[in-house]
Amino acid sequence: AICEAVAGLFQAGSMTGRKVVITAGPTREAIDPVRYISNHSSGKMGYALAQAMAEAGAHTILVSGPTQLPVPERVTRINVESALEMAAQVEASVEGADVFIGAAAVADYRPANVAQQKLKKTEGMSNTIELVENPDIIRAVAERADRPITVGFAAETKDVQQYAASKLHAKKLDMIIANDVSQVGIGFNSDNNAVWVLRRKAPLNAHDAASGGSEASAALLEESIDQMSKAQ
Amino acid sequence: AICEAVAGLFQAGSMTGRKVVITAGPTREAIDPVRYISNHSSGKMGYALAQAMAEAGAHTILVSGPTQLPVPERVTRINVESALEMAAQVEASVEGADVFIGAAAVADYRPANVAQQKLKKTEGMSNTIELVENPDIIRAVAERADRPITVGFAAETKDVQQYAASKLHAKKLDMIIANDVSQVGIGFNSDNNAVWVLRRKAPLNAHDAASGGSEASAALLEESIDQMSKAQ
Repeated sequence: AICEAVAGLFQAGSMTGRKVVITAGPTREAIDPVRYISNHSSGKMGYALAQAMAEAGAHTILVSGPTQLPVPERVTRINVESALEMAAQVEASVEGADVFIGAAAVADYRPANVAQQKLKKTEGMSNTIELVENPDIIRAVAERADRPITVGFAAETKDVQQYAASKLHAKKLDMIIANDVSQVGIGFNSDNNAVWVLRRKAPLNAHDAASGGSEASAALLEESIDQMSKAQ
Repeated sequence: AICEAVAGLFQAGSMTGRKVVITAGPTREAIDPVRYISNHSSGKMGYALAQAMAEAGAHTILVSGPTQLPVPERVTRINVESALEMAAQVEASVEGADVFIGAAAVADYRPANVAQQKLKKTEGMSNTIELVENPDIIRAVAERADRPITVGFAAETKDVQQYAASKLHAKKLDMIIANDVSQVGIGFNSDNNAVWVLRRKAPLNAHDAASGGSEASAALLEESIDQMSKAQ
């Protein structure tokens, strides 16, 4: 299982002095006070990575949507519900981070209007829900002048590697972990994930080069995910 | 807390030979393989009632949407995700039941089309989700020739008692428990619920009168919910 495979991959202290921000879990996009749109993400991948980073000595901040998971030791968890809340908390915490890992399954869209009272069948729970696009959290991180090593996930049900490669380049990520969620027993909510790791071949940017050690962080991360993948 | 308040309300054996079907939890209405519409129901109320009924000796079937709750002892749990699945399982299990308690927060609507692959922003995750009405599970139970004592819930954020009264009559329920979910710390996901119990004044139908004991079951149920309400 991922949790066990990741724990102990990092030697104690190898991330000391580094700051890591990780998002995890689903987001919930309110329709009204009781209804919402969400997805099947359990948060296990992000929590496992947070635990590994903290064990390696990193200052680890976990911005988490609703999950049933306990906070890993030495991890600072910030709880959020919606994509807008997650975006705000990432923005508030990512400055000075060496690594950002976007493991959350952020809703691409949210209802355009959130009713203040529970909608009744007879009064305006219409036959459509209008949607508006949510902010692209990981893209915003990757576009920062002081961008950290930026790692994304792609949870797909078909053409997994192809989508992952295009997401890697479109969002200017340093690394992407591609997840096949089409099969029973792997993917969301599962302890077993089938993953591919893609890494951008282009050199890291000037900030990364100057800061030193970021390359080492990336290599460490890549190795850990590679190990997780083999542990299945 | 409700769970503790309900347990032990029924004397052992007082429901022996009776069959009770209870729905609990939210439903999840799929948008595509990873996204869904759901609501904040935790299932605690339905599970507490199932536990109480089983402890009183009833043959208790719990048709449950996704929750994090353990199966109470001596309760037969049938797991479902969607309102359609819940409707089918209730239909399959309600025959011969003495009491039906609809404690689930069943989605009124579901997406008209469920995508077989995860929808991408670029290919048809359109700006609206079209909805179609779900079957009315409790109404279908109340309309059966062999209808059991039929108990509903109304989780509302305003005009709670008024909505509950109209639901009681419109759906021909025997009893309705009205829940105010507008305040923090009560309602969905809370151990504390603010509830009102409304009971239909009209006599129970011919089947109820003939079967005997149903009236006693209803009185027992009413008393239990009354106690739950006072225990807060």
